[in-house]
Amino acid sequence: MSLPAAVLDALRDAVGPAHVLTDPDATGGYAIDWTGRFRGRTPAVVRPADSDEVARVLAACNEARVPVVPQGGNTGLVGGSVPGAGEVVVSLRRLDRIESVDPRAAQLTAGAGATIAAVQRAASGAGFRYAVDLGAREVATVGGTIATNAGGLHVLRYGPTRRQVVGIEAVLADGRTIRRLEGLEKDNTGYDLVSLLCGSEGTLAVVTAARLRVVPRLACTVTALVAFDSVAEAVDAVGTCRRDLDSLHAVELFLGDGLQLVCEHLALPRPFPDRHHAYLLVECAAATDPSEQLGDVVASLATARAVAVAVDDARRRNLWRYREGHTEAINQLGAPHKFDVTLPADRLAPFVDSIGDVVRAVVPEARVWVFGHAGDGNVHVNVTGVAPDDDAPAEAVLTAVARAGGSISAEHGIGVAKRRWLPLTRSATELELFRALKQAFDPRGILNPRVLVPPEP
Amino acid sequence: MSLPAAVLDALRDAVGPAHVLTDPDATGGYAIDWTGRFRGRTPAVVRPADSDEVARVLAACNEARVPVVPQGGNTGLVGGSVPGAGEVVVSLRRLDRIESVDPRAAQLTAGAGATIAAVQRAASGAGFRYAVDLGAREVATVGGTIATNAGGLHVLRYGPTRRQVVGIEAVLADGRTIRRLEGLEKDNTGYDLVSLLCGSEGTLAVVTAARLRVVPRLACTVTALVAFDSVAEAVDAVGTCRRDLDSLHAVELFLGDGLQLVCEHLALPRPFPDRHHAYLLVECAAATDPSEQLGDVVASLATARAVAVAVDDARRRNLWRYREGHTEAINQLGAPHKFDVTLPADRLAPFVDSIGDVVRAVVPEARVWVFGHAGDGNVHVNVTGVAPDDDAPAEAVLTAVARAGGSISAEHGIGVAKRRWLPLTRSATELELFRALKQAFDPRGILNPRVLVPPEP
Repeated sequence: MSLPAAVLDALRDAVGPAHVLTDPDATGGYAIDWTGRFRGRTPAVVRPADSDEVARVLAACNEARVPVVPQGGNTGLVGGSVPGAGEVVVSLRRLDRIESVDPRAAQLTAGAGATIAAVQRAASGAGFRYAVDLGAREVATVGGTIATNAGGLHVLRYGPTRRQVVGIEAVLADGRTIRRLEGLEKDNTGYDLVSLLCGSEGTLAVVTAARLRVVPRLACTVTALVAFDSVAEAVDAVGTCRRDLDSLHAVELFLGDGLQLVCEHLALPRPFPDRHHAYLLVECAAATDPSEQLGDVVASLATARAVAVAVDDARRRNLWRYREGHTEAINQLGAPHKFDVTLPADRLAPFVDSIGDVVRAVVPEARVWVFGHAGDGNVHVNVTGVAPDDDAPAEAVLTAVARAGGSISAEHGIGVAKRRWLPLTRSATELELFRALKQAFDPRGILNPRVLVPPEP
Repeated sequence: MSLPAAVLDALRDAVGPAHVLTDPDATGGYAIDWTGRFRGRTPAVVRPADSDEVARVLAACNEARVPVVPQGGNTGLVGGSVPGAGEVVVSLRRLDRIESVDPRAAQLTAGAGATIAAVQRAASGAGFRYAVDLGAREVATVGGTIATNAGGLHVLRYGPTRRQVVGIEAVLADGRTIRRLEGLEKDNTGYDLVSLLCGSEGTLAVVTAARLRVVPRLACTVTALVAFDSVAEAVDAVGTCRRDLDSLHAVELFLGDGLQLVCEHLALPRPFPDRHHAYLLVECAAATDPSEQLGDVVASLATARAVAVAVDDARRRNLWRYREGHTEAINQLGAPHKFDVTLPADRLAPFVDSIGDVVRAVVPEARVWVFGHAGDGNVHVNVTGVAPDDDAPAEAVLTAVARAGGSISAEHGIGVAKRRWLPLTRSATELELFRALKQAFDPRGILNPRVLVPPEP
């Protein structure tokens, strides 16, 4: 796991000796992910300062056929930014420059190493917001969220990261750079390389900067909690909300058993006197007060068994506690197996209703908790009461998802962790196209070679 | 320009003899575009009924290395769907099935041959709209609008076609099919083939069906006309609108000389007593009345010299006449040279202010008219008083656009018409990537070989 001296010299020449770390004490933090689940070793961490230095680093590695792992904030969940087999780490964190918002375009340009929190601050300073926000905002970077097409809290309204990226600067494996940062909202001049790089997990090119859309800040937010007798009725109500609420901001789903767990573990009062089977948290946000609109629509839901509407922030936070408390309450039962999956709308209710039995058929002692983003078909399946190294829940859940035509990775990507499962959800033809695309961009296969694209069968 | 008998037999076997047209009387209409500017001949028009038949047609052509042109409604403007060099035409119009909207997902599935008008009707029947709408709606098809990433009237709010496509079914050159029609809004399982096929102009695969998003119908629309002393002030006001109007639906720009022409030719009253240099038409649409919000924001514009706000439909239509009358008024001066370009926000005003002089420097007798979609930086440059076959205006306008970092084709694509200009706006590295992608998808180069991707230099 040592680098040829010529390569090390070339890297030092590219970025300056101070920015090539080889001491294991210095590189260790780059070789493990934040959950501790993925760890490896690296012969060198290279910290370029700009896209020209990235280009020189990649050209040197490509020339010598040295594999690299691009790394941003290293907050991913599938091992995609960890050097698992002695790859050189190319850390983009020094490329953290953010240019001020151009309000005429509602856009800003940010370096790959800028954090999401820094982008949020820059947007906010001009009266806008960045539509992608997530818990790891202080560490997660623009480049990492582009490479993983991060979703975050507002996908229902604004789409994932791919939808926010107007332009990109990226360095190819051989050191050539492509640069489209002019922020052209309408540009039909050939293949959409920008969308292709979003979600490519560092396997096609190294993103060094991006032109990002920003969205209006919305002054007024209203939240409703609605109870239903069945998941199917809740999912049908999602359709009504999508059709009739143009200010719809979030639609979250949880179930009666999850609510009971949350109320017990967090000592919260129950939201309604009676117990119900399924709950939707529906939130609207707009520049002008959407409470009448939201009130009218939830009042029109014939299947609603109980409704609570919160306008002020304190009451809104209380309603959200029922949904957000799930993670904490479930964790108290022991580290869960977590699955982040999307179902087609017509399969969501049957899936939610049956997944507990599906898992218990192979692991009878398992308890299964389902909650998530009903508005975009994305649910979190948590399984507790199972040994951490037992693969049976993953096999059962991901197979059931794939059979229902769903996605085995709604948000987190494939990385190293899920590559073996990818054929469940991508056909042989699609995987052959993936390999052909990889070959087109990175013929020597130096970019994140253990990630995403399965080797030929 | 005749086909080998074995190929013709294979095509007849694939789709039935009645759907292989070879008589020039029958094929002629498929070999000319609707403007009459692009015309050619074809040895056969093949009309498959479903994706399996498309697969058999392409497999036969690929085997025999016979080039094909996929064709939808044939309403494109750059010659991308016309057999210019004896290609076989694969018409997708029979794949016109539309499945009903799933309101839970706010999506529908449509065959490539379904018209945009038919999709609009299906969406409307479920209380939604399809976000892409355009003048050619009765003829333009789902497949054609995906292949060209059509924009239409609502790009500012909803984005172009690429943003509406959740999933796709497409046949590769060799007849293999990829199919992702489950409508998964969140799906991070590998490269985004869907976005890549959108805008690929039939050069990578033949789209046979798509899963499309639909959006809420908005009951209330309000329109304002605002006059400014300069284009720069108008463009600055666009930023205020983008930031403060969450119901912003359209921002259109036109100039004083264009308005004067429109008022003269269409015998319209002037909108304001005084003449002004630049005008914005600002429209908001929402489920609840946005007139107060729009009124407040335009009242806050310090640079506004005159304002008219219209709430009822008749007055709104009158305001839109000033903008929409441009095409008709300009056409009365003789067939214009038309350019559909996007400028970066910070270059839009200087471009609009200078492009007349730029064109007149090479064609002194030219008159230059600029109007368009200021909200997304997309303007139409019309040049009148120049011979139809004079390339000087194109050279001048497109070079100026490229120098300003703009797009030489905002909406219409590259096709045959603009392929020679593509290097103005795409770097040698990008063009090499285009060729590598083309090679990955279509190694024998049978799909629309004269379109988009320039040959190696």
